[in-house]
Amino acid sequence: MNNFVFYGPTKYVFGKDKESMTGELTRWMGATNVLLVYGGGSAVRSGLLDRVKKSLDAAGVGYMEHGGVQPNPTDDKVYEGIAICRDNRLDGLVAVGGGSAIDTAKAIAAGTVYGGDFWDFYAGRSVVEDALPVGVVLTIPAAGSEGSGNSVITRIDGLHKISLRTESALRPRFAVMNPELTFTLPPFQTACGIADMMAHIMERYFTNTQEVEITDRVSEGVLKAIIAEAPVVMSEPDNYDARANIMWSGTLAHNGVCGTGRQEDWVSHFMEHEISAVYNVAHGAGLAVVFPAWMTFMSQHHPEKVAQYARRVFDVAEADDTKAAVEAVKRLKAFFAGIGLPVTFGQLGIANPDIPLLVKKLHENKGDVIGSYYRLTAADTEEIYRLAL
Amino acid sequence: MNNFVFYGPTKYVFGKDKESMTGELTRWMGATNVLLVYGGGSAVRSGLLDRVKKSLDAAGVGYMEHGGVQPNPTDDKVYEGIAICRDNRLDGLVAVGGGSAIDTAKAIAAGTVYGGDFWDFYAGRSVVEDALPVGVVLTIPAAGSEGSGNSVITRIDGLHKISLRTESALRPRFAVMNPELTFTLPPFQTACGIADMMAHIMERYFTNTQEVEITDRVSEGVLKAIIAEAPVVMSEPDNYDARANIMWSGTLAHNGVCGTGRQEDWVSHFMEHEISAVYNVAHGAGLAVVFPAWMTFMSQHHPEKVAQYARRVFDVAEADDTKAAVEAVKRLKAFFAGIGLPVTFGQLGIANPDIPLLVKKLHENKGDVIGSYYRLTAADTEEIYRLAL
Repeated sequence: MNNFVFYGPTKYVFGKDKESMTGELTRWMGATNVLLVYGGGSAVRSGLLDRVKKSLDAAGVGYMEHGGVQPNPTDDKVYEGIAICRDNRLDGLVAVGGGSAIDTAKAIAAGTVYGGDFWDFYAGRSVVEDALPVGVVLTIPAAGSEGSGNSVITRIDGLHKISLRTESALRPRFAVMNPELTFTLPPFQTACGIADMMAHIMERYFTNTQEVEITDRVSEGVLKAIIAEAPVVMSEPDNYDARANIMWSGTLAHNGVCGTGRQEDWVSHFMEHEISAVYNVAHGAGLAVVFPAWMTFMSQHHPEKVAQYARRVFDVAEADDTKAAVEAVKRLKAFFAGIGLPVTFGQLGIANPDIPLLVKKLHENKGDVIGSYYRLTAADTEEIYRLAL
Repeated sequence: MNNFVFYGPTKYVFGKDKESMTGELTRWMGATNVLLVYGGGSAVRSGLLDRVKKSLDAAGVGYMEHGGVQPNPTDDKVYEGIAICRDNRLDGLVAVGGGSAIDTAKAIAAGTVYGGDFWDFYAGRSVVEDALPVGVVLTIPAAGSEGSGNSVITRIDGLHKISLRTESALRPRFAVMNPELTFTLPPFQTACGIADMMAHIMERYFTNTQEVEITDRVSEGVLKAIIAEAPVVMSEPDNYDARANIMWSGTLAHNGVCGTGRQEDWVSHFMEHEISAVYNVAHGAGLAVVFPAWMTFMSQHHPEKVAQYARRVFDVAEADDTKAAVEAVKRLKAFFAGIGLPVTFGQLGIANPDIPLLVKKLHENKGDVIGSYYRLTAADTEEIYRLAL
């Protein structure tokens, strides 16, 4: 087991109607005048945004609005938000939505108090040391951003979709999590979220760090819970308990508890980020295509941990590692297909992906050789993209 | 799934030699003059206390010492500590040791800034709203107090051993966790710690709250990891990785992540507290005696969740719930016995326990009918104590 620091100081307030506590929690995190960051129309149409505003009003918290954040959020909304925060001396942010709204709020939070260009953080030229406090009202269980110190933003110029990881500087101070808010998610978006949270665990699970039984077992447990609950939320979208199980799983998948003490991988995420940056597909759908392809490659080159995953998560009874790994790919693809996700580029709606472009941008952004579970050259990542055809 | 708040803002710094960061972390938690709380001689003899002091010195943190805390820590050491903190205007505490040192430090931290008698908190007459910050250098993985908001203190007058639970007010600000510090733990103490952490999970696992698959699966994962690693730390006390797995398991067992969204039970702990208060046995050893007896009772009265535990944790293939539950008891007893723990009063060294006294004190402290998984009268708890004979 490797040394680690785990520091997850987010206060999770989980349950029915808890959005009514947003104002009180915003006060608790020390903010009195916030930027309210949200996405498209669903938070408005559902009345959620009004309930959040009412809660802020009741607590005497002032706010300005910054809506219209899109999936695969872009740097322009970050620059705009920073300007609003600075011009109005706002002292915190409340994001209402999923990963896109939260990640945008985090980037604004860091950028507002930073002397330079916020993109420095994403480009690895600077480290986030300070940020405005961010609170969250979660509506999409997927990205896990409500409990993570991470943020992913796409730079419009060049379509570079880059993830930033901080130990704790960008962790939300509070996260309101009401499973009822997810009842109306479209089925495809629900399924994409499930793929995303599973990928967050698997990126940490596939490691060469030995003797991490506790983290393996916790990770397998969260995966098993997701696999059990996913079909229920798909067939009964307003099943509160199933939605609750999925929502909390999404947080545990990415708050770091599935990664303690081990090297992590993240290549599948990097490979997907290129797809969604270029083709603007849903991140979770892209992952459902890339991850099985990555695992197929590993079944030939480094099957050991994939075999353990097969046996412990999917109860595959197969002694040979390669065969077990191949079976895991089959089961995972069947699971994804079963909840309506694509597992090939074609099913993702990209009949002829420009694989050389994806490979070029991937290695431009992440280096010549990437990944830790298995070191991948451009020839390898090209093969993985082709396995997804 | 029930509504819940999860707020675990402890910063865990895990790995070799990390005690050298104690001073820096004490500064980080905002303290400059601390009470150094520790137990018997092992932290002194091993040189750990000197290393911690050196680290505090290097960071310019002043300290006063408060050693000699005993297992099953008592209120007298708390009153003494409060007086020292007040008289010297100390602004924080660093506990070096296991649950006894940490729980004492927590009680002092709350009592110092409280106008009344600190026992008010334990007697349920007052709620902890403020406390001095507490940091921890953990040497015994067992109590889980390094990551919990809880504290257990025994009142010498009447031998009342009472646990206090807070959501976050008494959570340590930081916990230094170096598995190497546990290499020299005596085997019996190591085994007691293992029983304690397993009990912390099982007290949360045995619930009537339905549809808590994510919390069940995480709990089962931590239990499986402990069951796998326990024999290794017993046979190879200086196996770093096995010690690391056990140490982190002990934290996850009790930091709340195994209890989110569900009613918890805690009757076995209450029943054990009476045994260790009266007979001053090791808490973990007492739990190894009480918990299987409690489960035996449940196999007759409410076997369902015990049966799930049997199937998922011990891989028992038995369709009948009662039979599966009985088999779980058998497996758990065999596991405890295998790591050198007692599973009966006699093996615990109490040939003729005064069961009427234990029952009387238990219900005096906790009420006429106790427990949530199954409501237990005095006749029931007497039967459970007798099942442990």
